[in-house]
Amino acid sequence: MALIVHKYGGTSMGSTERIRNVAKRVAKWVRAGHQLVVVPSAMSGETNRLLGLAKELSPDPSARELDMIAATGEQVSSGLLAIALQAEGLESVSYAGWQVPIKTNSAFAKARIESIDDARVRADLAAGKVVVITGFQGVDPNGHITTLGRGGSDTSAVAVAAAMKADECLIYTDVDGVYTTDPRVVPEARRLNAISFEEMLEMASLGSKVLQIRSVEFAGKYRVPLRVLSSFTPWDIDLDVEAKSGTLISFEEDEKMEQAVVSGIAFTRDEAKITVVGVPDTPGIAYQIVGKVAEANIDVDVIIQNVSHDGKTDFSFTVPRGDHARAMELLKTQVVPALGAREVVGDAKIAKVSIVGIGMRSHVGIASTMFKTLSDEGINIQMITTSEIKTSVVIDEKYLELAVRALHKAFGLDEVKA
Amino acid sequence: MALIVHKYGGTSMGSTERIRNVAKRVAKWVRAGHQLVVVPSAMSGETNRLLGLAKELSPDPSARELDMIAATGEQVSSGLLAIALQAEGLESVSYAGWQVPIKTNSAFAKARIESIDDARVRADLAAGKVVVITGFQGVDPNGHITTLGRGGSDTSAVAVAAAMKADECLIYTDVDGVYTTDPRVVPEARRLNAISFEEMLEMASLGSKVLQIRSVEFAGKYRVPLRVLSSFTPWDIDLDVEAKSGTLISFEEDEKMEQAVVSGIAFTRDEAKITVVGVPDTPGIAYQIVGKVAEANIDVDVIIQNVSHDGKTDFSFTVPRGDHARAMELLKTQVVPALGAREVVGDAKIAKVSIVGIGMRSHVGIASTMFKTLSDEGINIQMITTSEIKTSVVIDEKYLELAVRALHKAFGLDEVKA
Repeated sequence: MALIVHKYGGTSMGSTERIRNVAKRVAKWVRAGHQLVVVPSAMSGETNRLLGLAKELSPDPSARELDMIAATGEQVSSGLLAIALQAEGLESVSYAGWQVPIKTNSAFAKARIESIDDARVRADLAAGKVVVITGFQGVDPNGHITTLGRGGSDTSAVAVAAAMKADECLIYTDVDGVYTTDPRVVPEARRLNAISFEEMLEMASLGSKVLQIRSVEFAGKYRVPLRVLSSFTPWDIDLDVEAKSGTLISFEEDEKMEQAVVSGIAFTRDEAKITVVGVPDTPGIAYQIVGKVAEANIDVDVIIQNVSHDGKTDFSFTVPRGDHARAMELLKTQVVPALGAREVVGDAKIAKVSIVGIGMRSHVGIASTMFKTLSDEGINIQMITTSEIKTSVVIDEKYLELAVRALHKAFGLDEVKA
Repeated sequence: MALIVHKYGGTSMGSTERIRNVAKRVAKWVRAGHQLVVVPSAMSGETNRLLGLAKELSPDPSARELDMIAATGEQVSSGLLAIALQAEGLESVSYAGWQVPIKTNSAFAKARIESIDDARVRADLAAGKVVVITGFQGVDPNGHITTLGRGGSDTSAVAVAAAMKADECLIYTDVDGVYTTDPRVVPEARRLNAISFEEMLEMASLGSKVLQIRSVEFAGKYRVPLRVLSSFTPWDIDLDVEAKSGTLISFEEDEKMEQAVVSGIAFTRDEAKITVVGVPDTPGIAYQIVGKVAEANIDVDVIIQNVSHDGKTDFSFTVPRGDHARAMELLKTQVVPALGAREVVGDAKIAKVSIVGIGMRSHVGIASTMFKTLSDEGINIQMITTSEIKTSVVIDEKYLELAVRALHKAFGLDEVKA
């Protein structure tokens, strides 16, 4: 008998018919002898409907009240799931975040979980019940309802699994796992049977479509085995097959089933490049540039500073594309004059491509294979940044698909046809 | 400065446009110097939508989970109203029943309020906030969400007003007060400026369209001045005019503005008559008949036992029309044989008409005026039952409108045309 946490996304809970399917699937696990805690999202569309009503009343509604309103979506889907489980002949009870309680800080709309008291849930499990817990929400020290931000139900599920030392946390979603890259760009993209949580973090730009990245951090921190799998397989497929389907996000390197050097190719078009040209190369310039941008609440991602010539250097970095114009204006009016730099140039038409793999730690020459592959395709690399298990390059946006396909092939990720 | 509780029904909260109007109306009261607690219902249609989803999943869903689901309707409307109030420039906070807390027993779907801790609400009012509290719901001793039954928001509002010793509880609804009788039956029906809470209780069959009867009991018990008034007047009408509009349900007889002997004519078509004929007149027969029916969870209303002839009597009573067939079957198969009665006869085509008035206490001959009026119209009275401030008769359903109109006129309730 294992303690298993299931999480079902909004699409999986999107209608009473689908909720009934979720209940049948959960019942299959219970009948196989497992203890089940289930964390559902709101029915798809519901959170947007609720926030839309609030927006009609105020252009800038209070975050505290928005959380009060949005949290009801999961309360409804949790109650409905408990009823569907009862209709399957199981005993079941649903709890809102405050009833568990899942305690968070008071950062409305982006609260962080601080602790989970699992006594009540454990007692219910011991009494043979399936416990349904609302995703996405908790309660702050003053008894206010909080929400964890979009996709927060993944984090709720992982946090519950961590608190209860669950054997595995299964994230049922509308895709069937994590892929070597986006199959819309590379038709040969292959589903990974397993990926380390560190790789998963680096694959954020792919992974964020599948898993809220904070849930992966949580899983890593508390060593919760996490599996992403499809909720659209027939509910009555063999449990042993289902239990091994999808992608396992593992914290044990030796649990990895695949030992590819590079596990996947991540990419994003969401960034823009800015270069401050002719900056006097004195101590503190990085802070004076990046600090100013950060103060304006603009995230800075890739940062490159080349060696200087004649006491001058060029300082480049990327920002979210939506903040590009604002960052450029800020630099032109405040930073360039203050630093005595020559000028600031921007480019929104860039893309970032990353190769990710734990194997890179112990293999040399991976980066050079990447650079050669891009070079062979005539793609100029504008910026490079590396971490222990990732190498990212910034290139002209128009070469993005070409670069991803070439790298996918070069690192042997293309699906092996039978 | 007075402490005022406003309650708004589902129709008044039916759209963001209407919620905005509620906020403007509340703001008018706050700007006049009053402290306001507002108790909204769910947006109209929402509770039915939610319960409909549950019904799709199970023919017999758990009451505990239904309450979990249904309670979200008021949580959403309360959060939306707080946002609308903030958009009007007021400080406002919304609380779900468990956050106040409004403590109830554990009778899911029909919970009774046991206590309200008003410390949190008082602190907010003292800080200048408008406090919005979800109607219809509370929390039981085990931390489960409970609901108070249909129309429970009226009871929530009155209970909050009682706990906080509010100066008045205003029930804003889609009618403009309590009428002498149903204006659809008697066009001359007149809105009452005031009615005693005892009369209001007896007027249940009229009042239930306006006010949940339990809220009136509560108001009477805790002496909360209650006013039913329209939420469809323009929000910016003069506050003094609004404050005196509608119908005041008063616990002080001397506050009554009208001293009519009969205040109103109530009626219902929801009952059916059953007569057990030829019952041996021995002690305990009432219990043997009514007890059996009550055991089957059927409410018994009017009960009549005539004097006996030759040791036999006829025993008549009314039951809800929907339970008529079941009650008849039960009596035929179990009661008639056991008692040695002759037979049981039923009639679903009946109506009950009642005259209600505190003045009946001190005036004789009211009942005989009623009987004479019906006799003059050729209406046969099948059953009679009386209480201190009410006389009810059961008649053939087809005479209902005729009886109500005739009585309305006979007791001087027809509107005086200017």
